[in-house]
Amino acid sequence: MPFTPRTPRVVAARRLHRRRDREATGRFLAEGPQAVREALHRPGTVTELFGTPAALDRYADLAARAAGADLPVSEVTDEALAALAETVAPQGLVAVCRHLDVPLDDALERGPRLVAVLAGIRDPGNAGTVLRTADAAGAGAVVFAGDAVDPYNGKCVRASAGSLFHVDVVRAADPVAVVDGLRAAGLTVLATTGYGDDDLDDLTDAGRLAAPTAWLFGSEAHGLPGELTAAADARVRVPLHGQAESLNLAAAAAVCLYASARAQR
Amino acid sequence: MPFTPRTPRVVAARRLHRRRDREATGRFLAEGPQAVREALHRPGTVTELFGTPAALDRYADLAARAAGADLPVSEVTDEALAALAETVAPQGLVAVCRHLDVPLDDALERGPRLVAVLAGIRDPGNAGTVLRTADAAGAGAVVFAGDAVDPYNGKCVRASAGSLFHVDVVRAADPVAVVDGLRAAGLTVLATTGYGDDDLDDLTDAGRLAAPTAWLFGSEAHGLPGELTAAADARVRVPLHGQAESLNLAAAAAVCLYASARAQR
Repeated sequence: MPFTPRTPRVVAARRLHRRRDREATGRFLAEGPQAVREALHRPGTVTELFGTPAALDRYADLAARAAGADLPVSEVTDEALAALAETVAPQGLVAVCRHLDVPLDDALERGPRLVAVLAGIRDPGNAGTVLRTADAAGAGAVVFAGDAVDPYNGKCVRASAGSLFHVDVVRAADPVAVVDGLRAAGLTVLATTGYGDDDLDDLTDAGRLAAPTAWLFGSEAHGLPGELTAAADARVRVPLHGQAESLNLAAAAAVCLYASARAQR
Repeated sequence: MPFTPRTPRVVAARRLHRRRDREATGRFLAEGPQAVREALHRPGTVTELFGTPAALDRYADLAARAAGADLPVSEVTDEALAALAETVAPQGLVAVCRHLDVPLDDALERGPRLVAVLAGIRDPGNAGTVLRTADAAGAGAVVFAGDAVDPYNGKCVRASAGSLFHVDVVRAADPVAVVDGLRAAGLTVLATTGYGDDDLDDLTDAGRLAAPTAWLFGSEAHGLPGELTAAADARVRVPLHGQAESLNLAAAAAVCLYASARAQR
């Protein structure tokens, strides 16, 4: 019989919608076939897979991969799936995953040439989008610093479109210590701010983006805290050619990260 | 006495939350001091301003500017403001505005060197964000083509962060006719697609982005229709350096539009 919303394992997994329970268990939920596939590609990440009979049939390759890794694969009713999922059209699959974050030093030991630091970004959709963009631009690590959103928040996981499982995710309480660590590892630390002294195009023209670089991004509402912009090697503004007062966070991050990717080719 | 939610002018303005009423009247709502300021900067756009007494006091410069242009400025209760606004923290001001769109030919007569075409993009937040990014990158016109979202949708207006009032907005039912018009005006038409033959970096290196350019963007879910990718001068993919399968729409548009802006300097 498929599990129902009252089956204890479903009840336990469902609690992972709350940050407190994610922190206590070191687990989070990934929903939908794309996220489940990416999670299964990373050995040791998935601990359990739930699916409706229809979804386990439709995505039989994923069910087989999970079973082949000796993971419990459980049929659930549509009601149980709806309880486990946060979206209206969850496509029938939800995986319980282990937290993935690594200490900053471990991430830096792998010598990333591009790093994105999300400093105090509270919006999970924005954070997940920047994580996805950083992955696309070739970043090796993404640091959630200060009081940034929990990277395992369901909306962040979904916005990352699988990239949460591709890059080294770091969580660090003290963003200034992160800047020190990045610089000690040989990375140039660039703070993005609308009022920066350096124009992104000028930095590019001067060849300063070719070096290994860490970009600091702040929240759209509050920007970067002053201590972080001061701690960076340079304060960079994306040029505004029209009348817009600013770019939104996802767009600014895309322009900066891709400027680095191009300069580093 | 301030207007209440039942005052006929508030009732009439409130109907503009519905597309049908926007189309019938040629009016839409702009909420918050930033949007109201940008709208007032564009003569003939605002037809009426509503504000709570506190907001009209706090933003006295905006109230004075509206009154100076012989526009009705009306005090409304907090309840009436909440009925007019769509956000939870509307900051006390809502303006009724005239539709701004111009025919494609009028926009092209001004000789824009950069144009963004939103083809069938249904998500108002995405459309507004791309509009904002296009403005920041120096685009002269943004075309809402095919069954794209109504540019006067409240969420689109808010996501544009004022840019709706900065660029020439065009609405066009037939996207292929738009491509023909753009090309006849001397613009190179580039279609963005994950499966494009041309890599954005290669096009940049070859100097092909220095010419006046129109970018075609499709919805994140469905991409561009085949007839549009076929009609373009080239099909361009943003390079993916990491493991991400794609970029989200706002990020891809930012990278493409800023690549053009830089090449056109």
